[in-house]
Amino acid sequence: MITVWGGQTSRSLRAVWVLEEMGLPYRLRPVDMLAAERDPAWLAVNPGDFLPAIQDGDVTMVESVAIMEYLMGRYGPTPLQPAPDDPAFGAYQQFLHLGEAGLATLMMVPLVSGFLAPEAERDNWSARWARDCVERRRLLVQRQLQGAPYMAGDRFTAADISVSYALRLGGNHGFALSDAEQAYLARTTARDAYKRAYERSHEGVAA
Amino acid sequence: MITVWGGQTSRSLRAVWVLEEMGLPYRLRPVDMLAAERDPAWLAVNPGDFLPAIQDGDVTMVESVAIMEYLMGRYGPTPLQPAPDDPAFGAYQQFLHLGEAGLATLMMVPLVSGFLAPEAERDNWSARWARDCVERRRLLVQRQLQGAPYMAGDRFTAADISVSYALRLGGNHGFALSDAEQAYLARTTARDAYKRAYERSHEGVAA
Repeated sequence: MITVWGGQTSRSLRAVWVLEEMGLPYRLRPVDMLAAERDPAWLAVNPGDFLPAIQDGDVTMVESVAIMEYLMGRYGPTPLQPAPDDPAFGAYQQFLHLGEAGLATLMMVPLVSGFLAPEAERDNWSARWARDCVERRRLLVQRQLQGAPYMAGDRFTAADISVSYALRLGGNHGFALSDAEQAYLARTTARDAYKRAYERSHEGVAA
Repeated sequence: MITVWGGQTSRSLRAVWVLEEMGLPYRLRPVDMLAAERDPAWLAVNPGDFLPAIQDGDVTMVESVAIMEYLMGRYGPTPLQPAPDDPAFGAYQQFLHLGEAGLATLMMVPLVSGFLAPEAERDNWSARWARDCVERRRLLVQRQLQGAPYMAGDRFTAADISVSYALRLGGNHGFALSDAEQAYLARTTARDAYKRAYERSHEGVAA
């Protein structure tokens, strides 16, 4: 049984969404990231103290998009993952990585200062710089959506799980999504696997 | 012929290092990221205006680690990339992604403010937050180096290209590397393919 450390709207949602798309069994183990003292079992799994992590037999690993690639590689093949000889492979890889390295990580800079910094330091130079980086990187998403319904072209892939997570995070925290981005997000999050992933992720925390 | 947009010490070094390890032909096309006016040909390739990008026939793509995965998938197999049934696959994926999403992207926050912000705003709340995130994420690298010479275990892989780039960036810009991290970086950058990649990346700009 695969254990996913995380829950709610953390990046664990990406891993859980892949698990639901692939129909793999898993259990969620919540982590309270706002607790004053961390669970030592959690810090043993990830001394870096960021969500999510998974445990699968002997394998313990972190980084949400890496976990997605692990699950698809180890338990695939799956249509979520175009093969290297597929014409969509380049776009697939680009957006799979862009969703985290280019979008969500940088979105966290103004998002976290908005929540945690003293009021006078919330709107700081680096938060504005990161916001500008995100706006520029979103031009790649917007350009893609002019010609195709999904990040890798005409079909849903794991790149859409990566990017949808980021757009949802941004849209909920001060980034104004374009009409095309909003329509895209409505399309990807209408999937049954997303709905199950979202529900399980919230149940897991309540349990 | 594969074209790599970038040069010098930009993240294009990751793509060029993979190309050198795999013995693939390529050409470098420099981009002046400090120019007041951007080359329109560059913005047509990447409207997001960040390095690197590659062009390979019909494929145009960005995001350095995505480019690495594209090159290995399209022109592999290569020992740089453990297969999904390899026991090293989880660690490989984790560190391949961590090098950018967890390390280099966050390192850029204090690094860029240090170069570009007005002096009074260089040391801002978000720059300090990002620096703390990097320090925590480096604990994963340091833990790995206690038990193995490379990120995926006993052999060099693309995860080492990803992480080495980040450690080199951090080490050159205010992050104090541990002895184990310095020894690791000396080991990975002693490779002939790295040396050729570094030389070509600087020649490309001078040409």
